Amino acid sequence: MNKNSSNTMALTPNTPNKRETVCIFGTGDFGRALGHKMIQSGYPVVFGSRSAQTSSLLPKDAEVLSHAEAAQKAAVIIIAIQRQHYNFLAPLAEILHGKVLVDISNNLKINQYPESNAEYLAQLVPGAKVVKAFNTVSAWALQSGTLDASRQVFVCGDDVEAKQMVMDIVRALGLTPLDQGSLLAAQEIENYPLQLFPMWKFPIYLSLGLTAFFFFYCLALDVIYPYIYENKDFSFFIAISIPNKVCPILALILLALVYLPGVLAAIIQLYRGTKYRRFPDWLDKWMLCRKQLGLVALAFASVHVLYTLVIPIRSYVRWRISSYTVSQALNNKTSPLDITNAWLSDSYVALGILGFFLFVLLGITSLPSVSNNVNWREFRFVQSKLGYLTLILCTAHTLVYGGKWFLNPSSYKWYLPHAYMLSLIVPCAVLVVKFVLIFPCIDKPLTQIRQGWERNPRYSA
Amino acid sequence: MNKNSSNTMALTPNTPNKRETVCIFGTGDFGRALGHKMIQSGYPVVFGSRSAQTSSLLPKDAEVLSHAEAAQKAAVIIIAIQRQHYNFLAPLAEILHGKVLVDISNNLKINQYPESNAEYLAQLVPGAKVVKAFNTVSAWALQSGTLDASRQVFVCGDDVEAKQMVMDIVRALGLTPLDQGSLLAAQEIENYPLQLFPMWKFPIYLSLGLTAFFFFYCLALDVIYPYIYENKDFSFFIAISIPNKVCPILALILLALVYLPGVLAAIIQLYRGTKYRRFPDWLDKWMLCRKQLGLVALAFASVHVLYTLVIPIRSYVRWRISSYTVSQALNNKTSPLDITNAWLSDSYVALGILGFFLFVLLGITSLPSVSNNVNWREFRFVQSKLGYLTLILCTAHTLVYGGKWFLNPSSYKWYLPHAYMLSLIVPCAVLVVKFVLIFPCIDKPLTQIRQGWERNPRYSA
Amino acid sequence: MNKNSSNTMALTPNTPNKRETVCIFGTGDFGRALGHKMIQSGYPVVFGSRSAQTSSLLPKDAEVLSHAEAAQKAAVIIIAIQRQHYNFLAPLAEILHGKVLVDISNNLKINQYPESNAEYLAQLVPGAKVVKAFNTVSAWALQSGTLDASRQVFVCGDDVEAKQMVMDIVRALGLTPLDQGSLLAAQEIENYPLQLFPMWKFPIYLSLGLTAFFFFYCLALDVIYPYIYENKDFSFFIAISIPNKVCPILALILLALVYLPGVLAAIIQLYRGTKYRRFPDWLDKWMLCRKQLGLVALAFASVHVLYTLVIPIRSYVRWRISSYTVSQALNNKTSPLDITNAWLSDSYVALGILGFFLFVLLGITSLPSVSNNVNWREFRFVQSKLGYLTLILCTAHTLVYGGKWFLNPSSYKWYLPHAYMLSLIVPCAVLVVKFVLIFPCIDKPLTQIRQGWERNPRYSA
Repeated sequence: MNKNSSNTMALTPNTPNKRETVCIFGTGDFGRALGHKMIQSGYPVVFGSRSAQTSSLLPKDAEVLSHAEAAQKAAVIIIAIQRQHYNFLAPLAEILHGKVLVDISNNLKINQYPESNAEYLAQLVPGAKVVKAFNTVSAWALQSGTLDASRQVFVCGDDVEAKQMVMDIVRALGLTPLDQGSLLAAQEIENYPLQLFPMWKFPIYLSLGLTAFFFFYCLALDVIYPYIYENKDFSFFIAISIPNKVCPILALILLALVYLPGVLAAIIQLYRGTKYRRFPDWLDKWMLCRKQLGLVALAFASVHVLYTLVIPIRSYVRWRISSYTVSQALNNKTSPLDITNAWLSDSYVALGILGFFLFVLLGITSLPSVSNNVNWREFRFVQSKLGYLTLILCTAHTLVYGGKWFLNPSSYKWYLPHAYMLSLIVPCAVLVVKFVLIFPCIDKPLTQIRQGWERNPRYSA
Repeated sequence: MNKNSSNTMALTPNTPNKRETVCIFGTGDFGRALGHKMIQSGYPVVFGSRSAQTSSLLPKDAEVLSHAEAAQKAAVIIIAIQRQHYNFLAPLAEILHGKVLVDISNNLKINQYPESNAEYLAQLVPGAKVVKAFNTVSAWALQSGTLDASRQVFVCGDDVEAKQMVMDIVRALGLTPLDQGSLLAAQEIENYPLQLFPMWKFPIYLSLGLTAFFFFYCLALDVIYPYIYENKDFSFFIAISIPNKVCPILALILLALVYLPGVLAAIIQLYRGTKYRRFPDWLDKWMLCRKQLGLVALAFASVHVLYTLVIPIRSYVRWRISSYTVSQALNNKTSPLDITNAWLSDSYVALGILGFFLFVLLGITSLPSVSNNVNWREFRFVQSKLGYLTLILCTAHTLVYGGKWFLNPSSYKWYLPHAYMLSLIVPCAVLVVKFVLIFPCIDKPLTQIRQGWERNPRYSA
Repeated sequence: MNKNSSNTMALTPNTPNKRETVCIFGTGDFGRALGHKMIQSGYPVVFGSRSAQTSSLLPKDAEVLSHAEAAQKAAVIIIAIQRQHYNFLAPLAEILHGKVLVDISNNLKINQYPESNAEYLAQLVPGAKVVKAFNTVSAWALQSGTLDASRQVFVCGDDVEAKQMVMDIVRALGLTPLDQGSLLAAQEIENYPLQLFPMWKFPIYLSLGLTAFFFFYCLALDVIYPYIYENKDFSFFIAISIPNKVCPILALILLALVYLPGVLAAIIQLYRGTKYRRFPDWLDKWMLCRKQLGLVALAFASVHVLYTLVIPIRSYVRWRISSYTVSQALNNKTSPLDITNAWLSDSYVALGILGFFLFVLLGITSLPSVSNNVNWREFRFVQSKLGYLTLILCTAHTLVYGGKWFLNPSSYKWYLPHAYMLSLIVPCAVLVVKFVLIFPCIDKPLTQIRQGWERNPRYSA
């Protein structure tokens, strides 16, 4: 067998004891880091460089040659060069014909160029098989071996064989290749490492907006109102008292917003009489970020728990309790235990604890490694059954906590309702509609629709 | 090379630039979702359908043909049809001969049919190579791309080659194939998605039973007894006080039950003088659900912590402390600090905190992604050494908390011991036996037995 | 094709319906467990044993032959024998020629022998292709199927093809092979299961040392000092009060130590004017254990939170508050609310809660399964931006908490500063230097250096 036909050779499994040589164009940080890692994994590595002289930073076992010479030695060539300098590859087109070119480049901005770097490379060297890979891995992570961020390497390319060769290299380096399809996916792969929590944007902006609204609402009622009408300085409420009103309100509203799209979808399906029409776009997007919404709600709930538990060590609370006790002692009276009050107080605390406990459980099952270990039925059981139970408990917690204020006219300062009353609107609406939806006369047609039955088959035409 | 010999072709790696065509029988939800995903991953897809007309819901790039025509175009045929309609495949037996048939069906109940759907399919089309796969993935998850539940696809089949082809497809779709062996495993694979936390059943039923017992036990002693004999209404204890007795009791008992089977196993091995005989079945099962027992115990412990931390904000507790302070003030006396009491109170709280902290640590290391990153020695160190330390700390916490009541006759209402005394039986027994087992004169023969030595070799014959 | 040339056959994919026979030398625990698992996964298994008689413990479907006979039946031979008995393999060298020998042995101590067991095996049987694998899996885990510890199987060997065959077997058993390169890696692979949290050693020893120092420092100032000068017995402070000073001090110092090496690295790079020189060894090591340092800090912070939240249920605290209230009542005076004090108290509590919340968030993102699902930019955003925010909040929490004591001479007992003042040194230093580093006039050259620019190019020659 001819040793020089390296391109096809990479696929023949009979070469004994040796992996195929890999060529790396470019001796920058990432090229060097990748070279080191490949040599460790048993690949002979040859660097292609403008100045074919060995640098002290390059791995010792690697050869450094001119681009043309290096390319001839290997079937797979990794292009560790920035996109701006790709045009030097055009003159090498003949040598690169039939080779596998691995584009590992990243951009500085999302959609910086009209076409992806990998597609641009494929246009420049039409005879080569371009594969996009490795762009999600950082040089530092490769070098230090602590791949704390992702071990996943997205791979795409039009040539299945070439992609397979690259995926084998990825696996040999201890990373996990994920085939993303044809080179059309390169744009998305190049954008991926530039994204900053895209799925979290909507939940976070929404909660920031709601936080601001409720913060100023509470500020007006709890700090400004007493300052104007009673001349009392409660400005220090800004640190704990007001956040501890805003947090539970947001936790409850966001939790309800997790279950609202499901309820809306059921209503839409019932109205249309078919499941074979797409939901409106906003509903689709909303459904896809339910997990994130729920986790943001859990964050608010956790902070609420902490804020609540520190109540007894707040200096203001200690002063208030102490003053009350002293005034009782001075007035020489002891109030008897109010059983109703004890019941109410203990009930809402207990409901809150159980609701929070289930909420944390939901959060734990949404950890990727946990959700990978449950089957679909178990996942739905937790996220749907336990989820609604959590919503019921948390809503009940809020109702029992503040129910007495609904009928108390003094709680309507400036004719505005108490902030926590506003927080009950969405969860109560969701629970009432859900309650209606599980009535047999409504649940039955809905189940039929979800199994594929259509009330009005012309819709699906 | 003949393009029509698609069956063998799938294995030759030289087909350039193209994946092998995959055929899907059935245009239902799952068939369509799978088709979409496969086209995304670069597979040409052809649908086999009774009415060979394109629906607007099918992927645009997919062909729709009659079953027979579609089958001829591909080596791999995915049967996205319910088991009841499988018999239409029998007349196609000739065309399907030598093809890879992928059974993706699920049932509605565990063990619904005597044989698995995949085996039934293999009987119907004897010449085909049947592979079971994809039944654990949901259509919705495939479509939305949010594979929050499992990415794992169990694969089984009698033909290694056919299985390999299917596993390659699974991998190309970004899922993780898990080879489960021959087609005999299909029954188990089909039951898997119908299971609802099978490993959790025993721990949860056990803890529900114990919860009910201790709840009514405490109810009798703490609410009914004072109501009858002292005419006091402590019914509101149901919300927090009693649960906060039941939770720590259950946490301690369940934690001890995690370590009891290990101790029993050691005793059995010592008695038998060999490790080469199977443990009784109940012990084996018990050992396999220790992790779940421990996590349920952790759940009870967490709720106990929350219930304890809210004590100072309970209206009843505030009233009690305030009454006590007022009565002191009215009686014009100040009690000095009771150092012993301060020591006891601080000690049991500190022991509880440390025990709970270690318990949470144990819980974190049992997360799949964490336990995958520790080696066997580290895992055993955490689960065994730290586990026993947790048990010791939690038992000490309970002993210090209530030790004073053991000798106090007034705590034996109705001649019954205090509930928390009952909770100490199992953990103390486990700790005492474990303490005996680490004595050198007992530890040495046990270690020998575990390394393979037999006191009485005839047993293993 | 000749059925007996089993060695090359393993690679031809055309053998229908059957996996290749695997031979296992040794019928001990691990050999049997592996045999069982392989038969389950469809491999014919033949055991090689001195006494070629079937034991009741061996899998029923397995053949038991003499070593020589068994070896001839398979291309892959698993050596489930301890290293001390390897020399019996030397006479079999001819039969083993060209076979794949899988060394699965472990030692009892790290670096027990000068060369790894696998290399020793390769010397004994020079004609065989030795592959190291399976040593990280335990027999018990294989048998019970609960692979709670690692599913990862490290594989290394000089022959790529042989390694591939072993990795295929590993995958077929439902485990994850990780290629570690040539047989030189065997030493490290054999040491791996003997390690006990090597990356955690430094953080844990460091924190133990600091804990001891601060514990005795606080003991001297808070217990011994009042005992000597005021004759007060505060010995019970050992249980909660002192640990609750030591824990936050350690959490803050360790958190600052996570960010100190990054700051030092920036200073070194600025001073050298290049990033192309290695950092000193201690800095490299420090940087690699930052995650562990951070998690230990989080553990201390969590215990601090628990210790703080139980304050109101401590008997000492209840006594103190009650005494104070009684004395107020007896003196017939009510103190008005001190707004400044309320502000300070609420502020440091709120800062602490937010800091702890972010800290927990950092901890969650360091879970392997979570960090695998974020890209590099998101990981850096969380660990760097949110990390510094956490450090700022925690430092502010400490400053606000105890700022008043700095100027109070009575807090300098024995002319020693309060312990928590010592804890502020490192975090304040880190924050000040970091603040200087983000000044444009310093940030700009630093960014240039990190992008590859060199002030003094001769360094990199």
